[in-house]
Amino acid sequence: MAILGSTGSIGISTLKIVEAYPERFSVVALAGGGNVDLAFEQCRRWKPGLVSMATEERASELRDRLGAADLRIPVLSGAAGTVQVATQPEANFVVSGIVGVAGLEATYEAVRAGKWVGLANKECLVAAGELITAEARRQGKPLLPIDSEHNAVHQCMRGGSLGEVTAVWLTASGGPFLNTPKSEFSRITVQQALNHPTWKMGKRITIDSATLMNKGFEVIEACRLFHLPPERVKVIVHPQSTIHSLVEFRDGSILAQLSVTDMRLPILYALTYPERLESELKFDLTGLRKLDFCPPDMKKFPCLELAYEAAEAGGAKTIALNAADEVAVAAFLDGVIGFEGIPRTIKRVVDETTQAHPESIKQVLQIDAEARAFAAEVTRRERPLAPALGVYTH
Amino acid sequence: MAILGSTGSIGISTLKIVEAYPERFSVVALAGGGNVDLAFEQCRRWKPGLVSMATEERASELRDRLGAADLRIPVLSGAAGTVQVATQPEANFVVSGIVGVAGLEATYEAVRAGKWVGLANKECLVAAGELITAEARRQGKPLLPIDSEHNAVHQCMRGGSLGEVTAVWLTASGGPFLNTPKSEFSRITVQQALNHPTWKMGKRITIDSATLMNKGFEVIEACRLFHLPPERVKVIVHPQSTIHSLVEFRDGSILAQLSVTDMRLPILYALTYPERLESELKFDLTGLRKLDFCPPDMKKFPCLELAYEAAEAGGAKTIALNAADEVAVAAFLDGVIGFEGIPRTIKRVVDETTQAHPESIKQVLQIDAEARAFAAEVTRRERPLAPALGVYTH
Repeated sequence: MAILGSTGSIGISTLKIVEAYPERFSVVALAGGGNVDLAFEQCRRWKPGLVSMATEERASELRDRLGAADLRIPVLSGAAGTVQVATQPEANFVVSGIVGVAGLEATYEAVRAGKWVGLANKECLVAAGELITAEARRQGKPLLPIDSEHNAVHQCMRGGSLGEVTAVWLTASGGPFLNTPKSEFSRITVQQALNHPTWKMGKRITIDSATLMNKGFEVIEACRLFHLPPERVKVIVHPQSTIHSLVEFRDGSILAQLSVTDMRLPILYALTYPERLESELKFDLTGLRKLDFCPPDMKKFPCLELAYEAAEAGGAKTIALNAADEVAVAAFLDGVIGFEGIPRTIKRVVDETTQAHPESIKQVLQIDAEARAFAAEVTRRERPLAPALGVYTH
Repeated sequence: MAILGSTGSIGISTLKIVEAYPERFSVVALAGGGNVDLAFEQCRRWKPGLVSMATEERASELRDRLGAADLRIPVLSGAAGTVQVATQPEANFVVSGIVGVAGLEATYEAVRAGKWVGLANKECLVAAGELITAEARRQGKPLLPIDSEHNAVHQCMRGGSLGEVTAVWLTASGGPFLNTPKSEFSRITVQQALNHPTWKMGKRITIDSATLMNKGFEVIEACRLFHLPPERVKVIVHPQSTIHSLVEFRDGSILAQLSVTDMRLPILYALTYPERLESELKFDLTGLRKLDFCPPDMKKFPCLELAYEAAEAGGAKTIALNAADEVAVAAFLDGVIGFEGIPRTIKRVVDETTQAHPESIKQVLQIDAEARAFAAEVTRRERPLAPALGVYTH
């Protein structure tokens, strides 16, 4: 296999699985980020045929380290290097774990090269989902989702054919503000928003979980991965995150997937599909007592509604949604805008984005860059804290 | 299709489905019970090529009614007639819905004739499961379970291969005495026991649900249907009966099936497998609020433990378990024994049954008859009500 984003959390978890099943997998190529120490360790341990780093500076450092250790592994860098890793002829399976649009081109090229692809990168489906899923269909190769919700959907879908699916229900933990009144949203601090109840994750995805934008992205991903219209992809709040998603079939049966909340499980599933290997990631049903559910509150969490609207429109609108969210979340984390400024910024950017249906990754990246620039401008005009009195317009 | 037990509740539900999908199914043969009026109506409506009634007396009445209505349909009777219905050459699918051991021989013959069989008759698996499943394997034809739990398991099993299943979890509503202290069990009345919280069913199965013996039978059925040892078939109490069962795979994923509690759903599934047809039996997930679970209390419900022991032993012990339970439940309903007399009677009969592995349905029926006779004797020695003081031995 080849791993895009080997030094990130998906890459590290993937390599743990490779380690647990040494007779089953081998590592052909790795694309790391900026952590040279870890990339060096990974090279020493897995001896891939090719490595790439995010920048030429890091690549050069890694070359020196490898040379000193007498390890002859070619080290590339940047976007071109990542594409080389993604299309290595010896790799059958490519794990797409680079965060952000940086992973787009390489993932698309992996699909084009006929690889089985395990998708952990959100942007591949949110920003470039139409292109990538169309290419995967042309290649007749599966796109295997590496995140708990879509992986759960993929598992439940085995209970029938796609034409028999009437709806997909993505579960949402509800985030830290599930029970916070809307009236207090303007005073939400960064620290409060970073305190996610069930999953330990990176900062952006944690904020996206607090706004429910993460669930909105997942709605878009599900639409594209499973070829469903947005009205057939629904969200149900389930604070325990025990059921990872459900699939409803036309006869009235619903299948649900439950498991521990550990990313290694969807990674293992994707890497071994259609087989299932023995793992230690067991969920103890004897300890199960209560599962709670409720519908999501679209008024409290406008990001979710914005995502449905963008999913309906598709194309440039979903690219803008993702780009604007990334910029808005960064601005919130930096104290530049308040919590409610996040959906305001996104709405403004998506509304102003001219609808278009890009036909190449290059066009996707162009729309993404424009949306980012505009989002940055919008956030600069936002105010970090809500005024003491009244509602302010935007 | 041919329907064994057309005038019973499974038969009636099956014909409702035939009615809903007229282009999909046709009724080739019917085996009814004693309800001549209903059997006559069914003949008039479905014009099967063959009918059979439980007794010659009822068959004769039906012949007269059909003759008067100028309907030329041959009417047979008894066990031989049921076998004829079950093996009609024009039928591809046989619904086995006759309650009790009366359905055994005909179901076995349907399997032997290479039919796809939908199993709603418990005894087919509890008393004759080893014979019937072995024959189905020889024929390479599926046995499709028509009850909510095993049907749910069948659906969830599609998420992997049998070798990947580590456990099956059957959900139990817990019955009306889930929260009744053990100390009050000796005073349980027939009326209390007939008051099932979630399903409306016949009297015996309602009492079997109150003692959890029904769940015990289902454990045995699951062992046989899915070729699992008893320790891999587990029971979890789930009072809402929304999740109908769960399947645990070796990678740690668990699939669960949810639906409304309506027998038409598993019947439709069995009749159309591997397809799923559109139905109106929808479960509204937006209304879902809470699912509760707890482990079953084997001390309060010794019937469940007796079933596990019998499942482990197999053969004559499971035949005796079923036979003794039927006799004990009838005695309880007649006020001959108390609620706690049910497991006592069953234990006594199963313990005294010499272990054997019958090689024919005839041998099964012989062991069944002996166990019934002995159980009747045991119940006559029981006392209907617990004494006011102390514990009495048996």
